[in-house]
Amino acid sequence: MRLLGKQEIEDIAKGSTLLGAGGGGDPHIGMLMAIQAVEEYGPIQLLTVDEVPDDAFVVSSAGFGAPTIFVEKPFGGLETKHAMTVLEQHMGKEVFATFPIEAGGANSMLPLVTAAQLGLPVVDVDGMGRAFPLLQLTSFYLDGLTATPMVLADEQANTTLIDTVDTPWAERIARSVTIQLGGAAGCAVYPMTGKNLKESGILNVLTYAEEIGRAARLAKEANVDPVQEVLKVANGFELFRGKVVDVDRRTDDGWAKGAVKIEGLFGYQGQQMELRVQNENMLAKVDNRLVCVTPDLISVIDAETGVAITTEGVRYGMRVVVVGIPCHPKWRTAKGLEISGPDYFGYDVAYTPVEELMKGRDLK
Amino acid sequence: MRLLGKQEIEDIAKGSTLLGAGGGGDPHIGMLMAIQAVEEYGPIQLLTVDEVPDDAFVVSSAGFGAPTIFVEKPFGGLETKHAMTVLEQHMGKEVFATFPIEAGGANSMLPLVTAAQLGLPVVDVDGMGRAFPLLQLTSFYLDGLTATPMVLADEQANTTLIDTVDTPWAERIARSVTIQLGGAAGCAVYPMTGKNLKESGILNVLTYAEEIGRAARLAKEANVDPVQEVLKVANGFELFRGKVVDVDRRTDDGWAKGAVKIEGLFGYQGQQMELRVQNENMLAKVDNRLVCVTPDLISVIDAETGVAITTEGVRYGMRVVVVGIPCHPKWRTAKGLEISGPDYFGYDVAYTPVEELMKGRDLK
Repeated sequence: MRLLGKQEIEDIAKGSTLLGAGGGGDPHIGMLMAIQAVEEYGPIQLLTVDEVPDDAFVVSSAGFGAPTIFVEKPFGGLETKHAMTVLEQHMGKEVFATFPIEAGGANSMLPLVTAAQLGLPVVDVDGMGRAFPLLQLTSFYLDGLTATPMVLADEQANTTLIDTVDTPWAERIARSVTIQLGGAAGCAVYPMTGKNLKESGILNVLTYAEEIGRAARLAKEANVDPVQEVLKVANGFELFRGKVVDVDRRTDDGWAKGAVKIEGLFGYQGQQMELRVQNENMLAKVDNRLVCVTPDLISVIDAETGVAITTEGVRYGMRVVVVGIPCHPKWRTAKGLEISGPDYFGYDVAYTPVEELMKGRDLK
Repeated sequence: MRLLGKQEIEDIAKGSTLLGAGGGGDPHIGMLMAIQAVEEYGPIQLLTVDEVPDDAFVVSSAGFGAPTIFVEKPFGGLETKHAMTVLEQHMGKEVFATFPIEAGGANSMLPLVTAAQLGLPVVDVDGMGRAFPLLQLTSFYLDGLTATPMVLADEQANTTLIDTVDTPWAERIARSVTIQLGGAAGCAVYPMTGKNLKESGILNVLTYAEEIGRAARLAKEANVDPVQEVLKVANGFELFRGKVVDVDRRTDDGWAKGAVKIEGLFGYQGQQMELRVQNENMLAKVDNRLVCVTPDLISVIDAETGVAITTEGVRYGMRVVVVGIPCHPKWRTAKGLEISGPDYFGYDVAYTPVEELMKGRDLK
């Protein structure tokens, strides 16, 4: 167990933006909420999964819905608390601890807020090791665990308890309820035991995010290139550097789809990168050659500030560094790729790990 | 207590079509389901509210969603059973009896099916005394009772338990969930005590529907005009007779809106009726003079068969009799008219009871 204060929260938030792979929403507002919660309730206990008893009842807390709405209509903070309370009552069990469903983006922060408000610890684990846009895209789901019973709640305590035959059904219903609640809702989801969490979670992911965020911070203080420091910690690769020359964005079937074109600079002159976006950055090509593809993480970093940018934040003219980070090995299994690979998102390329694609590049 | 068998169910279904005021869906499929349930489980017990203990836990069971879908995708019969079971578990109470939320249309029949399957009695009461298209349009709501906690379920037992700050919120969420479930769902709703039911329900409404249906059946057997016999039992008025010359239908904001023009025949020659439809028949004018308006019931009867027709069933060329029936007095209070009067549905006329409008006509 260790305590998370303001500095730790800031580092986690920064690292989570990178792990969001462009999605999951900007954690900035979540970070401010978490810092405020720490100031009000004191530091938050962070547990490793080993500190959670096998039979403990643990529940993820999250924001559900469009991250863009979350920015316009930030949570009052009571949403997830309401959701947790209803789920506790329904299941007749007391929650031992909460944890993030995704350590990428805003949802890395909300469990900290919930934990502070409910006086619970947070477990250093998530179900993605990154951000993904669907309830079923979790390591828990890969192991046969279900998101339900789950509860959605708004700030008024309008609550909806969803219990379905499988998680894709829950995703569908939760999505439509959330639209009625204004586009974003608090959520208590993936109730499970401590044993489930140990076996099926992606471990130490908040610490991983924190280390990434800290590396960026220290590099900036030492006036060295934050991107290289971050890549060392994240075991990632620089894919490209250049200037954004085209951003095509549209909302299609409830997805933020788009494509970004980047013209090479600093050693990439004469080359062009194309990014394909479906909420997250899903596929990156340089001169039509694949350099990184989902479920590996593709993140765009502002070259001037060293801060990762969400897909909504990418603008014409920005100088950026695009990096690729190997996803958690759970996503690279046949079952994992089935729901997170290029095929699932409609891209006609075979999945190849980013480190292999990079090897090929070195040989060129 | 009395028992409902095949004949009673047929009479109730026929009477309910009239009380549906054109809406609530055709009870025919529901009737077939109820008859099948009776054949399988034996006759259904019908209780008067006086036979329900004050502290008994009672819950309405209903179909939720578009009646048109209900025809295309009839219930397997397990939907409401699933919903009732989840609500029972959630509230930790055993259901004593079920009852219809509306005695108009298909929802007059579904509680009979649920009752047969769960071995429960049905109470002779509803919350509308007719059909209305929104969860909050009930006499229960007028008395401050709420529809929630309520449960929606599909045939697979995908369930959603909704608990909101007020019933309009529940209506909004339930509507969107039902669309995800394919457009129609089984529903356990308006959980309350026997005391609530006695004080706030519209009493003996299934018997009322049955008497209407029986009058039509006996008239047909005796070869007399069924419309006049039905009007005697229903305390209703003949508003018009004629031939349908124009049907304008559109779906607007999830509502089946439309207008029907009828050219007078049999003593109404030279006159024209216009009906305005919003799921139900809402307003009737003859030569631009108001003759009946919501919440009073306007029903269209096929002159040849004596059977009431739902708004979807009205066709060009049909010979019809249009009748008006006074609504339950609860709808004529200031509070009742606020949510069921012409103003609520966007018609710029003052509510006047059908019997007063008819008096004026006699003087002409």
